[in-house]
Amino acid sequence: MADRLDQTALKQLFTEARTHNAWQKRDVPDALLREIVDLVKWGPTSANCEPARIVFVKSAAGKARLAPHLSAGNRDKTMAAPVCAIIAHDLEFYEHLPRLFPHNLAAKTWFNGNAAHAERTAFRNGSLQGAYFMLAARAVGLDCGAMSGFDNAGVDKEFFPDGKLKSNFLCNLGYGDPAGLFARSPRLGFDEIAKIV
Amino acid sequence: MADRLDQTALKQLFTEARTHNAWQKRDVPDALLREIVDLVKWGPTSANCEPARIVFVKSAAGKARLAPHLSAGNRDKTMAAPVCAIIAHDLEFYEHLPRLFPHNLAAKTWFNGNAAHAERTAFRNGSLQGAYFMLAARAVGLDCGAMSGFDNAGVDKEFFPDGKLKSNFLCNLGYGDPAGLFARSPRLGFDEIAKIV
Repeated sequence: MADRLDQTALKQLFTEARTHNAWQKRDVPDALLREIVDLVKWGPTSANCEPARIVFVKSAAGKARLAPHLSAGNRDKTMAAPVCAIIAHDLEFYEHLPRLFPHNLAAKTWFNGNAAHAERTAFRNGSLQGAYFMLAARAVGLDCGAMSGFDNAGVDKEFFPDGKLKSNFLCNLGYGDPAGLFARSPRLGFDEIAKIV
Repeated sequence: MADRLDQTALKQLFTEARTHNAWQKRDVPDALLREIVDLVKWGPTSANCEPARIVFVKSAAGKARLAPHLSAGNRDKTMAAPVCAIIAHDLEFYEHLPRLFPHNLAAKTWFNGNAAHAERTAFRNGSLQGAYFMLAARAVGLDCGAMSGFDNAGVDKEFFPDGKLKSNFLCNLGYGDPAGLFARSPRLGFDEIAKIV
């Protein structure tokens, strides 16, 4: 049986972590990006399908490809971030299931020829992995700034021209500058979110 | 700037955590369920929309309502789990945005009259919150066993008859019995998941 994480860890992951808009001029090493992926891959997905695909846009050339597709309010802060990760998912993730889910070699057939079911499974599980991604980044000491305000079709055409991968959301990564934080928004109460029956 | 979590915490959240199928006969107190929700609510969602809604099915009467809608392979283990959480999302989450996202009082209008956009936003962000839920449960020392194998429409009719909430996935909670674990499935490699540009 596992113990509880201490309060310092819970604050870092959840209760005191903030969505950042401004960034310190401090590099994020590639080794840290690799470590995030090596944590994310262990998070649970249905039939271990692991549909998330991630492009870390770090170079000036990469940023220039991304910039035209960002909403006006997200452009400057993303260009200033050390890294912007495109969180996408593979609509043909099921091609890997015979290797990834050896418990049931028929799993691939659940999706073959059922594009709507495959898309929904990729979107659900790719989103789960997107959340693992943000908490993994926080766990290794980075700050996140996730965004939905961009032209998905434009990003997909630029970064995923073969049509198999679809962008889900973007997430800036780096060491946040608290001066750029908004006031923290209120949260729903327990009774608005949950019940016990 | 935050430090890194230590290896013990990373193992508990990611690298050594497992999806459990068998459960110790040990109660999960309601206070722990409340604590999970109080962590999940701080996780980032777009425009702080927080669409996830959670029903913790804990009583025998609640389990009896859930049982008919589970796939055969998920029924017995769910009935034996101390708690099964229904992770759902509110298709009308945007009604709360004037309170939850005071930075932009127009946010509600992005979704009013655009049911497809609202559904996709609820599903994406509700899935993010579902992942926060699993990692929060692990963070407070519980084990998880998430499942997609159930009749969503049947669960929705039984638990959400007004049609505004839609089930996403189920997650058993408790203290896992390692005797019920499958062999761990392989994971994709870094170069299959990600690239740095």
